[in-house]
This record gives sequence, C-alpha cells and structure tokens, in this order.
Amino acid sequence: MALSVLENIKPIFKTKCPIVVYPSSGTGAWEAALVNTLSPGDKVLMFETGQFATLWRNLAVDLGLEVDFIESDWRHGVDANVIESKLKEDSAQNIKAVCAVHNETSSGIASDIAAVRKAIDQAKHNALLMVDSISSLGSLDYRHDDWGVDVTIAGSQKGLMLPPGLGFNAISDKALKACETATMPKAYWRWDAMLENNKNGFFPFTPATNLLYGLGEAIKMFEEEGLENTFARHARLAEAARRAVKAWGLEIVCANPAEYSNVVTAVFTPEGHDADAFRGIVLERFNMSLGNGLGKLAGKAFRIGHLGDFNELMLAGTLSGVEMGLAAAKIPHQKGGISAALAHLVDE
Amino acid sequence: MALSVLENIKPIFKTKCPIVVYPSSGTGAWEAALVNTLSPGDKVLMFETGQFATLWRNLAVDLGLEVDFIESDWRHGVDANVIESKLKEDSAQNIKAVCAVHNETSSGIASDIAAVRKAIDQAKHNALLMVDSISSLGSLDYRHDDWGVDVTIAGSQKGLMLPPGLGFNAISDKALKACETATMPKAYWRWDAMLENNKNGFFPFTPATNLLYGLGEAIKMFEEEGLENTFARHARLAEAARRAVKAWGLEIVCANPAEYSNVVTAVFTPEGHDADAFRGIVLERFNMSLGNGLGKLAGKAFRIGHLGDFNELMLAGTLSGVEMGLAAAKIPHQKGGISAALAHLVDE
Repeated sequence: MALSVLENIKPIFKTKCPIVVYPSSGTGAWEAALVNTLSPGDKVLMFETGQFATLWRNLAVDLGLEVDFIESDWRHGVDANVIESKLKEDSAQNIKAVCAVHNETSSGIASDIAAVRKAIDQAKHNALLMVDSISSLGSLDYRHDDWGVDVTIAGSQKGLMLPPGLGFNAISDKALKACETATMPKAYWRWDAMLENNKNGFFPFTPATNLLYGLGEAIKMFEEEGLENTFARHARLAEAARRAVKAWGLEIVCANPAEYSNVVTAVFTPEGHDADAFRGIVLERFNMSLGNGLGKLAGKAFRIGHLGDFNELMLAGTLSGVEMGLAAAKIPHQKGGISAALAHLVDE
Repeated sequence: MALSVLENIKPIFKTKCPIVVYPSSGTGAWEAALVNTLSPGDKVLMFETGQFATLWRNLAVDLGLEVDFIESDWRHGVDANVIESKLKEDSAQNIKAVCAVHNETSSGIASDIAAVRKAIDQAKHNALLMVDSISSLGSLDYRHDDWGVDVTIAGSQKGLMLPPGLGFNAISDKALKACETATMPKAYWRWDAMLENNKNGFFPFTPATNLLYGLGEAIKMFEEEGLENTFARHARLAEAARRAVKAWGLEIVCANPAEYSNVVTAVFTPEGHDADAFRGIVLERFNMSLGNGLGKLAGKAFRIGHLGDFNELMLAGTLSGVEMGLAAAKIPHQKGGISAALAHLVDE
C-alpha cells in the first residue's frame, strides 16, 4: 500500500522526484525542508506574503538560520524582481535557499512560482528553491519539476481532502545533494532514513497509517476527476466567489487580480466594521464558520474557503450565508452577490 | 474540546503536570523531549532494553548528543544498580539525562521506573529522568508524578487505542526549567509555544484534529472501566498468555519474571526454527499477524500483543492461532497452551 501511494502521489506534485511523508503538520514539513538541506547560520531569503510566510520565517529563525525577510503588505504575492535583485547582490552566493509560499492562505494570494524560478536563473544563483504548497497542492496547478522547485512542502488537510496529520516533502536531486553536506541536527526529519526505508514500502518509525489509506482514496478521486478538471473547477468556483464579493461592493485583500487565489478569497470588511463580530453572527445565525483574519488582518478581513472537495451548491450555500450575514450584521453592502455568482456558474 | 482533552488525559499519566500533544509518531515525542531540555554535546545515559531503546539512542546520537549506552542482552530491564553506579562516578554531574523505556515492545520487558528514580536520588544526581511509556501508558500502571519522571514520552497507537499520529510529552517543573537554558535548535517541538497556545485551547500549528476527538473518546473509555481495572485486566490476560507459552514448552524472551510485560509477550522459537517462517504460516492459515522479532531478535522470536482494547476471547483466539500455527509449522511443542490459558482466565 505504502509503495503505491508514494508513487501515485507524484503526479499531483507534477514530479518524478521522491516524496517523503511524515506523521506531522505542514509546519513539520517546513522544518524538514530546512534541516535536511541547510547548516546552522545559513542565510535564506523569504518573502512576506502573509501570516504563513511569517510563521515559516519564525520557524527558520528558531532553528538558527539567518533570514532575509522581504517585507510586503499582505496584498501582493512574491515579487520576483526583488528576489532577482537580492540574489544578484549576493555575488558571494551566501543565500542558500529562497523560500516562497505558493498560496498564502491568510491573504488569498497565489504567487507566480515560475517567475521566482526565472529570477533565480537570471541571477545565475545557486540557491535552492523551496515552496510551500500546503494550501495549493491538488487545488491549484502546481509543478515541482517544471518550475525547478528543490523542496515542495505540503500537508494533508487542504487540497488533498484529508484530516490533518501528514506532512510532505518532494525532493529534487539538487536538494538531495545538499542534504549530504547539510549539518543542521536532525533525526525525526531525516530524508535519508525515510528514503532508504521507503524503497521497500517501510518507514523508519510508525507512520500515520490511517491517513495513508485515506491518501490512497484521495489519489483515486483526483484520478477520477482528472487533475486539470479539478483545477478548472476551483478556478470557476473562485471566480464566482469573487464576483459575489465585488457585487457586494466589498474589497478583496489580494490587490493584484493576476494573483487571486482560487482556493480562498480574503475580503475586507468596511472600515469601522469588525470582521470577527461579523463572523460571530454568521456562525450563530447560520452555523457557518468563516476563516478569520490572521496576524495583520485580524479583525479587518474574513476568508471564504473554496478548496478541496467543493462544488457549485456548496459555494452557493456559503455565499448565501455571507450575504445574509452582511445584512444581519448591518454591514454596508449591495445585495446581489449570490446572484452574480450564480450567473457566472450557470454560464461557465 | 482541546482544553478538556489536555486536562482529562492527565490522570492516565498520573500527573498534575502539563502535557503537550504533537501531530507526530512516538519517535517525534522522543525528539521533543531531548531538544527541549538539552544542549548540543550534552551527555545522556541510556539503557539497552531492546530495539526501541536502541532506536532512541540512535536518535539522540543523530541530534548531536553524547550517549552512554549501557549494553544489555534484551532479556532484562533497566538495571537500576548500574544506573546508580554510573551516576555516582559522574561527580561532575556531566550526565544531563537518564533515559529509560518503561515497556520494551521488542522484548516484552517492563522496567522498574521507581527503582531508576531511587537510583538517581541515591546517587544525589541532578540528571533529568525521561521515560518512554509509548507502549505502556494506559495498559500498565504508570506514575509520572510519583516516580519523579521529568519527561514522559507517549504515543496514541498503543494503550490509548487510537490510530498512530499523536505524540505526547508530560513535563515536570524541573524539565520546564531545563528548557529555559537548553540550546538545541528547535521550532516544531517547542514546548513554550505549545504551552502558551494550549492555555486557550489553541495550538501553534494545525493539530491532528480527528485524533484529538478520538482521544476524547479513549479517555471516556478509561473513565468507564476505571484505570486500575484496566491494568488488572491486562495483568490477567498477560498471565494467561504466559501460561500458554510455558505449557507449550517455549521460552519467554524476558528472563526475569518480575519484569514480564503485561502488554506484549515475546517468545523464542526453538533453535533451528525460523520465527518469521512460523509467522508467515500463521498469517496465511489463520489471517493473524503476530509481531516479528526486531533487531537482535529477528528470526528468533515472535510477539503476542495483548494491549489496549483487548479481552478474554480475543486472547483465546490469538493463543488458538499460535497453538495451531505451531502444529502447522511443525515446531516442537507440547499441546495444551490454550487450555492452560483458559484455566487461568476462568479462575481469576
């Protein structure tokens, strides 16, 4: 069972590289990516797309890495131009890794990872490219091999439609090579022990067995729908959600339409209207729990999730709950969001 | 939900100390215990009770700790006298922790942790006491507070009757104090972030939610049966299993009856009879998977598990499978093991 799951998960990452699976959260898979490839004090370049990029930065700092954290406003994706100029300045090649979050769950921003790859190449820099695809994998088009990603970090509880408890690393040859000389202390996260055991379908310690069986089922669901169809479904549903938000006259957190996330839409409440009070009313009246604003967005924004096992009528229910909630909470808005969404869904 | 689970799990550890829960295997909880309390190069004292003690040693070495590993024959528990003399020799108090496996799953040996505590006290040594209760918690009497354990390591998939995927650390005040000055790099395993978030029922990263709900149910099952009744049940079932083994004329791996494990019985096959071939026959004929001999016991022993959610008739089925398997595999033995077991079960 393990052998087939470890093989059949690869097309979802669009990779031929080995993938290791930990009993862990996505945070554990962040840590695994860093401790296997880097040495104490190594410099890494990270970009502040939102709360999760910030938490990954904090984790790297805790582990004793030196982080150059490119600050941003949580309304834009990774700026590949800034990455490129930072790498060009680093003629000594001190930067050992560029870390980017593909889909920022906190702000609803999907960054252009191909552009980040191009920036590294243009700068003729040797840094590893590590990408967090925790909330994008299986919902947005993700290409480990085409984009030249060295370590892809993923988790079970988003697009893979499983309970939380599995963390993933997809590992390029270059990352495996880096692992040979990396000196960060590691035991639980050791790729070498994992890969050696995986060859025969074993693990170096007890895996999260039940979730692996679930993963096998999730893979079958992707195969049945067809991965590109899954991505198209999320694009269609997300566009409908955004049309609703615009019809309500509310502002989407992501400021660049090219970077709209197709898995989550973060929405500002109007100035002076607390987003968490609104969420509380929606929860109480309609038993629907909207995502809260995290970190810098706390109280200012709410999030509409539309990832994973999600369809037209689930979205219609969700948007209806938001529209009624806006009325119930007396938040200034125009009616008609749900109608705008349905018009898109029926046409596309 | 999280708050009540984190509180109600404490009586199972017999502690008033805080307990943190990771999305991880027990191996992760081993690592958490070490990285939160120790600094690179610190010396730890460990005792070779079997395969799991050996794996914990390997993990400590991987993390850059200096391990004094007291070798043994996998047929005896932790020798508290050796611990005491090692600690007495260490007048400079260089040993920072004594690590012991309460129940060695590989060899079916339950060590006397109270005796280890006494040894540390007799030596007037300041080392932390860390105990792996992964396969004992909830099946054998375990006393974090009474035994003065500083870090208890546990997992979800044995006595707690859950799927794998939760790792636990119960943490004494002394261990928390050690954490303040410990310099091993850590992020995912950080107790401080975990405890700070737990205060309000939160976690620093996504927990293994479904297993936490399961843990709530497991705790209710312990409360219904009564913890001491659970221990008595395991003692009765284990004694019946051992009577069967003795009636068959086979040898129990654990050489000291005072250290017989009440959760698993490891049994030698007679010289010249491969234990794995025997296990294969039992699996094929009766669809029962006996535990294999691990490490030094590979091919020489098999293991009968009788832990967790287990009762008289499940044991009767198990022992019947072993008895028929011994006949089918033409392993020299006397009949009557199952009868000896039933005689004990009906009398006690």
